[in-house]
Amino acid sequence: MHFYMPVRVFDERDCVLRHAKDIARLGKKALIVTGKSSSRKNGSLDDVMAALEAEHVEHLLFSEVEENPSTETVLRARDLFSDSGIDLVIGVGGGSALDAAKAVALVLKHPGADLSYLYDATKDASALPVVCVPTTCGTGSEVTGVSVLTRHDKRTKISMVHKIFPVLALVDGKYLKNAPAELIVNTSVDALAHLYESVLNAKADDYTRMTASAGLRCWAKTKEILTKERTASQEDLDLLMRSSLLAGMSIAQSGTSLPHALSYALTYDLALPHGKAVGIFLPAFLKAAPEAERDELLQLAGFSGLAEFAAFIGGLFGGTEVPEEERRRTFEMVAGNAAKMKSASFPVDEKVLETIAFG
Amino acid sequence: MHFYMPVRVFDERDCVLRHAKDIARLGKKALIVTGKSSSRKNGSLDDVMAALEAEHVEHLLFSEVEENPSTETVLRARDLFSDSGIDLVIGVGGGSALDAAKAVALVLKHPGADLSYLYDATKDASALPVVCVPTTCGTGSEVTGVSVLTRHDKRTKISMVHKIFPVLALVDGKYLKNAPAELIVNTSVDALAHLYESVLNAKADDYTRMTASAGLRCWAKTKEILTKERTASQEDLDLLMRSSLLAGMSIAQSGTSLPHALSYALTYDLALPHGKAVGIFLPAFLKAAPEAERDELLQLAGFSGLAEFAAFIGGLFGGTEVPEEERRRTFEMVAGNAAKMKSASFPVDEKVLETIAFG
Repeated sequence: MHFYMPVRVFDERDCVLRHAKDIARLGKKALIVTGKSSSRKNGSLDDVMAALEAEHVEHLLFSEVEENPSTETVLRARDLFSDSGIDLVIGVGGGSALDAAKAVALVLKHPGADLSYLYDATKDASALPVVCVPTTCGTGSEVTGVSVLTRHDKRTKISMVHKIFPVLALVDGKYLKNAPAELIVNTSVDALAHLYESVLNAKADDYTRMTASAGLRCWAKTKEILTKERTASQEDLDLLMRSSLLAGMSIAQSGTSLPHALSYALTYDLALPHGKAVGIFLPAFLKAAPEAERDELLQLAGFSGLAEFAAFIGGLFGGTEVPEEERRRTFEMVAGNAAKMKSASFPVDEKVLETIAFG
Repeated sequence: MHFYMPVRVFDERDCVLRHAKDIARLGKKALIVTGKSSSRKNGSLDDVMAALEAEHVEHLLFSEVEENPSTETVLRARDLFSDSGIDLVIGVGGGSALDAAKAVALVLKHPGADLSYLYDATKDASALPVVCVPTTCGTGSEVTGVSVLTRHDKRTKISMVHKIFPVLALVDGKYLKNAPAELIVNTSVDALAHLYESVLNAKADDYTRMTASAGLRCWAKTKEILTKERTASQEDLDLLMRSSLLAGMSIAQSGTSLPHALSYALTYDLALPHGKAVGIFLPAFLKAAPEAERDELLQLAGFSGLAEFAAFIGGLFGGTEVPEEERRRTFEMVAGNAAKMKSASFPVDEKVLETIAFG
């Protein structure tokens, strides 16, 4: 068994402004890595800039991170900023911005680094310090070392081999206040997938179960937000963020499993949001798991059983058709990946994988 | 809310030997800090030396740590080893050895450091890297930044102000195999006190509750070992270690509260083992807590309620008489400490403190 979670987490209202000094302690010139617009709208970018200005930390902005960021985007940031004296990277946004920030922190530390560096485990994995300010409730990237990047050369997404844990995660539910309902649904299902895939994982242990159980209990309280049975209170927004963070802590221990593995090609080919692409495979993944454990895990998230869970996911994502040939392509990619086939806590052969891939 | 737990934990059989390379990565010349004899008997010292030798890490031994180590002992280690080129400190033993190791790692980093340095928050808190190998199941020191030292000048124990988190905790239940029953009882009650005091704490939050709940569930499975209803299996020994570690993670978030505060003078004056000195105050502390939360916490540790818990503690420590004037002395010390009086999750005035101190 093992536990490793080196990120200092502050999970509280206005934590970006309140912890400006903690950010300033990490560097003198920050690169803010974010997407094109949402961090401007939800107030997170303003907060980060105000915190940096209050502490006289110089800063530059790279706001070109697209959804499912590509390795090309990471290398473009390297080209733009490698001579700028940047000594701190701040990711602001959803998983795309945070994952990109980690990769940028790596390549800015190693100026000659190219695409191969990101995927070469023999290379030095030290990076500039990273601060993460999440603004969606699914990625958990603020507490993992993982950076998933789009590889156009392979028509899918592949995690960088180096683990870059943020030094500081500043988590504030207020940034979700005006988030589109669909974004909350998609990211929150991603968090649920992290919780289930981390614990139904070959690498799961008592520590994974600790963080995942806490996350599932937290997630259960927000379920009615996703089905629009009630509108989200400030407390709900905090709980959505906390579920996502606890889910991130869980995958940081054990990694994800088959729903994530199956999702990547779908996201690439069909431009499905990540959470939806993962969620589609989640009921069948749970169905394939040992019954007693599955039922306990479903109950922790507030579901009476598999039927209710499948109906819940169907209700959120109903009408999303995945073409047969697309399921076939992702099935074959995962079936050919020995590590992924061994990633679940229960035995998975091609026949079992077929039940998950084809639903 | 916040969470910070930077220690890399391996909690598994033979982890010292299996992670020799992880130790070696931290330094070239290690000082092993331990007590006079128990780490020789339980095999932990042999394992540490074998791991260091396998990786060609030079090592020196300081085996003079007494129970409730004094600041004099820490400064003696400084005098003996400050010119030895030590770049890594390995604490092996119970809380005394681990707490001493942290303080030694601090003073060896700052050669001129004296007693005042340990208690001066304005001083640089950087220290040599520390590895901890616990051999008792109470301290949790392997996952906290705390070092509690005896101050003969003040006739009590006082935590160093600097927080020194170990880099690596190597936790193996096998070292408990031949531990005296009394040691297991005393240290395991200390772990239980950490679990209760961290969660019934003014600083407790969802993260503290996560680690403490996991710890209480773990602890509940080992209760019958303490009452000798059955002998400990290998799995029980692992669970005892894990409860203690989870309790350490919990106090690392929120600190301890009144039973610990009240215990220190007793330990000093009556030479009571730390766990016993704390345990004596635990039933009355829980009695003073809000009923619903207290009952839930008691149930997590496998107790039907307060009466059963008080009887359990009485059964373990029955016959330990604490003189009235001793209770008076510790009561007055804590009553005069404003921070300690505010440390519980519920209001404590002198009257409430009296019910806890006088039982």
